[in-house]
Formats: sequence, structure tokens, C-alpha cells
Amino acid sequence: MLADGVTAGRDLPPFPLSAVDGFALRARDTLEASQLSPRTLKLADGERVSRGEARRVWTGNRLPPGADAVVMLEHTEEKPGGIQVRAPLTPGENVSKRGEDVRRGEVAVGAGTRLRPHHLGLLAALEMTHVSVSAGPRVALLSTGDELVEPGVKPGPGRVVDVNRLILSRMCLELGAEPLDLGIAKDDVEEIGARIREGLEKADVVVTTGGTSVGRMDLVPAAVDQVGTPGVVVHGVAMRPGMPTALAVVSGKPVLILSGNPVAAVVGFEVFARPLLLRLLGAEGEARPTLRARISRRVPSALGRRVFLRVYAFERGGEFFAEPVRIRGAGNLSTLTRANGYVIIPENLEGLEEGAVVTVHLFDRVGRR
Amino acid sequence: MLADGVTAGRDLPPFPLSAVDGFALRARDTLEASQLSPRTLKLADGERVSRGEARRVWTGNRLPPGADAVVMLEHTEEKPGGIQVRAPLTPGENVSKRGEDVRRGEVAVGAGTRLRPHHLGLLAALEMTHVSVSAGPRVALLSTGDELVEPGVKPGPGRVVDVNRLILSRMCLELGAEPLDLGIAKDDVEEIGARIREGLEKADVVVTTGGTSVGRMDLVPAAVDQVGTPGVVVHGVAMRPGMPTALAVVSGKPVLILSGNPVAAVVGFEVFARPLLLRLLGAEGEARPTLRARISRRVPSALGRRVFLRVYAFERGGEFFAEPVRIRGAGNLSTLTRANGYVIIPENLEGLEEGAVVTVHLFDRVGRR
Repeated sequence: MLADGVTAGRDLPPFPLSAVDGFALRARDTLEASQLSPRTLKLADGERVSRGEARRVWTGNRLPPGADAVVMLEHTEEKPGGIQVRAPLTPGENVSKRGEDVRRGEVAVGAGTRLRPHHLGLLAALEMTHVSVSAGPRVALLSTGDELVEPGVKPGPGRVVDVNRLILSRMCLELGAEPLDLGIAKDDVEEIGARIREGLEKADVVVTTGGTSVGRMDLVPAAVDQVGTPGVVVHGVAMRPGMPTALAVVSGKPVLILSGNPVAAVVGFEVFARPLLLRLLGAEGEARPTLRARISRRVPSALGRRVFLRVYAFERGGEFFAEPVRIRGAGNLSTLTRANGYVIIPENLEGLEEGAVVTVHLFDRVGRR
Repeated sequence: MLADGVTAGRDLPPFPLSAVDGFALRARDTLEASQLSPRTLKLADGERVSRGEARRVWTGNRLPPGADAVVMLEHTEEKPGGIQVRAPLTPGENVSKRGEDVRRGEVAVGAGTRLRPHHLGLLAALEMTHVSVSAGPRVALLSTGDELVEPGVKPGPGRVVDVNRLILSRMCLELGAEPLDLGIAKDDVEEIGARIREGLEKADVVVTTGGTSVGRMDLVPAAVDQVGTPGVVVHGVAMRPGMPTALAVVSGKPVLILSGNPVAAVVGFEVFARPLLLRLLGAEGEARPTLRARISRRVPSALGRRVFLRVYAFERGGEFFAEPVRIRGAGNLSTLTRANGYVIIPENLEGLEEGAVVTVHLFDRVGRR
């Protein structure tokens, strides 16, 4: 992400270039050329093109001194010692002018641009080998729960592998943010509080998963409120999945308290953390690509809750369809791995009818069927 | 890119879980519960839920032994020493069954999947900490041209910075291919031949830029033909930009000979190298995302040539538009940096009328205006 706009220190191209394969010449020499009376030009001996001369050039070659236009190869005919031109050229014809691509003093690449290969090429052409980029915001990730074990550790009876930090750290990296690992905390307000304090010292944003519910087990919100002020600002969001999501601020830093359910954690991250991190990166406009598609079957929904429905969007016969990923439990990870996007069902609808046109927010490529 | 499909070695979830926040109970105990005659259940003392008992659970908790259903918190009423239930539950209600997400023996993630954060989470949950991924194909990149200097070197008079290897190496990395740098060769058939030979030894694919034209300066095709057989198979493609593109095979390895013009090189890479590399990666289906949009102004085109028009696609008022990037020279890098996609104008059209519906192949996010 480019931190400051880059102003071109030179013209690009730095000198006039031939825009085609052909012959560089003086336009004035062709003024009276026509089909019936073609004009014959002599091939120049040296670099310079003098009156009545032409010189072979290829696309991208510097325009030889003396020349002011280029006739395309296919519009010429070779003759002994020269070429024939059958139509007049105007000065500048088939020539890329100096500064035509980027003019000196112009902003060549704007601040907040995520640098694609093309931008790197343009910067190199402008002899900008060093530019300032935004440091990604640091995101401290904490999982909570007595039942959790680290990935790679065999879970004993009744225990489960914590996948949330792994998934969310990769989602941070994809955005250009820097994940920091706060590990797994036990279901203990003191321990959770200590880890969150550590996260607030080291990072710009803290994201926790687990230990929050709409009911009574609100360990993380309680811990955050002990760590500092104002503490929890929002607790409970009318969305599904992700109802127990809580949002907090401590010492001016955001703390996002997400559900421990991996799918709800991912959706919570998508809805709250992603826009926040993009804003910190100066890339607020960078939403997920969207696609308009028809929903392939009826989906019931809960009135009063905004539902984030995982779908597989695909093209068939020039039309786009979104198929709800049909797996019983909404908490199952395979509803994410089998999907390539999500559809938001507004809280004032009881569901979607088959064939309804929806907006799919894509996190992977559109399929074909 | 996952090389082999991953078969689940265990059920996920490994045991029944509560799918909601609420109380685990025995469905049979609620058979006669109703609004008028609610059933009161006692809170269980230990882990086990016995007849007439209930136990507090949160989403994702293991279902306590003895219980076979979960009543949602909001459907209960707290009573001294217990809870009241006002409707019967069926066995399995609000329970995520063992193996419901992924069943042991099932293919959890298919071969050729580009692993997103979600897939890594699912693999970790399945205790798969090591999987085989495809090695990216190695792509040797060579630039040719006496006028070229390395990025970072001040170009002397009449010389230009070679940006092609920089851009194409980043495009390789984005796909998951591994770029190898063959440097810059002078306009000399022997030198070019030696570098290509080196590339064929070290890499799976060789991509060159420069030293090819539709006319007479065909240094790279000549060099390739000297290196081995069958050599050049196609020379000259009816596309714009990228007419002088040549395609060759030597000792069973593809050699893609692209124009030296950076924009034509990028388009040539897009059209010929990208599908080839995706195929070598086992990800043939992974085309650029596409978008249907209306072209915002008339574009003339050359009959008989397939034109790759750079456009900026954006949304306005729920409709998508594609604006041709209006810069005079087709060879200018800023036609790429200001675009977010391209439109293919077929060779049998003389152009596009304003408002025509086109398919945009996106290489960056869609804008908004």
C-alpha cells in the first residue's frame, strides 16, 4: 500500500518513440504522396533522417533525429535502395510523444494504491526504486477456552483444536496487516485480562475469539472492562452467525470480541475487523468484489437478524447463480471451504425466495457449471 | 495449491456439540411441555444430565452425557433451582452431530484447491498439519535489447529501464509460479541463444520479451530455432497489442516470445503464459474474475485483430460500467496502472458502440463512482 503519492521526476517516455513497426520519416516529404503517384524515400545511411530519407524502426525505438512521423510497415513497399509511400502522413503520426505516458510533475501513482506488478513497472520506469509504503496495522489475536489445544497437538477427550488464530492470522496477512499471536487463554478473567493488556501494548488492534455469549458467560467482555476504559461499547449484535460479538475500546485502541465458533469468528472478522483494518491501511474503498446472482433455492431466515449466508456462486449459460452451501450446522467450517462468497439477508426479511437476485460478496473465484 | 486431495482421518465435530446457547436436556422429558403446562427441569449437579435435568451449555460445547437435545436460552425461563420449558423438543434438536461438518473418509479438501485461510482452519481441525502442495512451475525470464538497463541503473541517453522482468516476475509470483532471472541479453542471436539454453536447463517455461517483430528483426525466434527443435511454432498473432508474439517449443518445454513493449508483454503474458502456468499448477479453471458492464464510450477497433482494451470498471447506482483508459499510446504503462481489467474486442468487429455490454476480465477491484 503506497503511503505517499509518487510524483514523476521525469517524462515517460523520456523521448519520442515509434509506436509501430515501420519507417521513420519527415511528414513533409509525404505531403503529395498518393496511390497514383507514390513517393519514394531513400534509406538513411546514418542515425539521422534527412530530407527525402526514411529509416527502419520497431515499436518502442527512439525516433531518429530529423524524423517526425512513422509510416507503418504494411503501408509501404520496398524498392531498390528505398521504400515507397502511397499516402501523406501528418507530423507526430505513429509517434509516442515525450511525456505522453506520464508527464514530469504529475502524480504517477496515488497514495493508498495497493501496488500491483504494473505499478512496480511504472515506478521502475520512472527510476523510483524506493517508495514509502504503509506499515500494516498490528493485530493481536487471542483465543480463549479451557477446551482448546494448539494446532498440531492431539486433542484429548472433549477438547478441540483452536483454528481461529490460524484462520484470522491468514486473513490479516491477506489484507496487509501483521498478526501477533497472544496464544490461548483459559476461561479465567484475570488471565484473559493480562493477555489483552499485552496485546494493547504491542498491537494496534486486539481481536479475541471465545468467552463471549449473549447469555451469562461473558469472560472476555468482563476482562476488557477491567483492563481499561471506556471498555465494552456494544455487546450482542443482531446478526447470524456472530450474535455474541462485542466491540470495545481501551485507551483509544479497538478490541473486537468475536464468537468462539470458527464460522462466527470469520464472519465477525469480515464484518467488523476487515473494514477497520482497511481503514487503518488507508484503503477503505477496498471492499470484496461483488456479483449479482440468482439464489438457486429458497432460504428461510430469522426476522430481526441480519444473516450472512455462505454461498457458492457460479456461472451457467451466461447467467450467475448463488447456491447456499447446504450443510446442516451453521457452525461448520465446510460451509466456508465449500463457499466462494456470502450473501447478506437483511433483518427485515424472513428469507429469500428461489430465483431472488442477490449480491454476492466474493472471497474466492466464481465457478462454472 | 493442494497437490493431493485430503481425506478426513476423523469425524468433525469429533463429538456432538451444542449448536446454540441454552440448556442441554433429554428431549423425552419435554414431550408434554406446552405454553399452558410448562415443564420444569432441575439443573444437573455434575457433568451428566439425568432424567428431569438440564445443564447450561454454550455454542460449541460438547453435549453433556445423557443429553440428546438443547433448548435455546431464549425459549426458557429461569426458576429457583431449575428452568422452565414451554414446548417439546425433538432428539437432536440444536445439536451438531458427530461428523456433520466432515465425515471420516470423506475428501475434505480436493486436489488443486488454492488453500484459503478457511481451508487451513479445516485442515488443522482435522489434525492435518502437513499436506502436499504443488511446487510452482519455474519460469525463466529474459529481456533482450541493446537499449535496456537494469531497474535502478540510470539510463543514459537513448536508453530505457527494462521493466518487463520486474512486472512478469511479480505476475508469476501472484499465480504461485517461481520466476528465475536470465537478465538482459544484447541484440545478438548467439547471446540470446545461450541465455535461452540456460533457461531451458533450469526452468519449466522460458518467457522472453523484445527481439521479435512482424517484420525483419526476429532475433529471438532465430535464436530459439538454433537452440533446438521443433522451435518456433507460431510467429505473429492477430492481436493488439502483442502482434509480434511467437510461441515455440524446445525439447518439450514451452518458450513464449513476447513483444518488448511492456504493455504488449503484459497482455501476451496474460493471454498465453497465465493459462499455461495455471495448467502446470493444476488450476486450469482459475480464470480472472469477470464482470458484465456497459462500455462508457465508443471504441474503434481494427477488423481482423483481437484487441485487448484496458478499462476501468466501476459501479454507479447499481449498474456496472467499463471506461476505456483514454491515453493516446497503446504502449503506455499507465494504460495498465489506471485500469482494473480488460475487455476483448473480437476480430470480427470494427469496434464497440457506446453502451454495448461487454465482459470485463478483472485484475483489480471494481471501483465506485
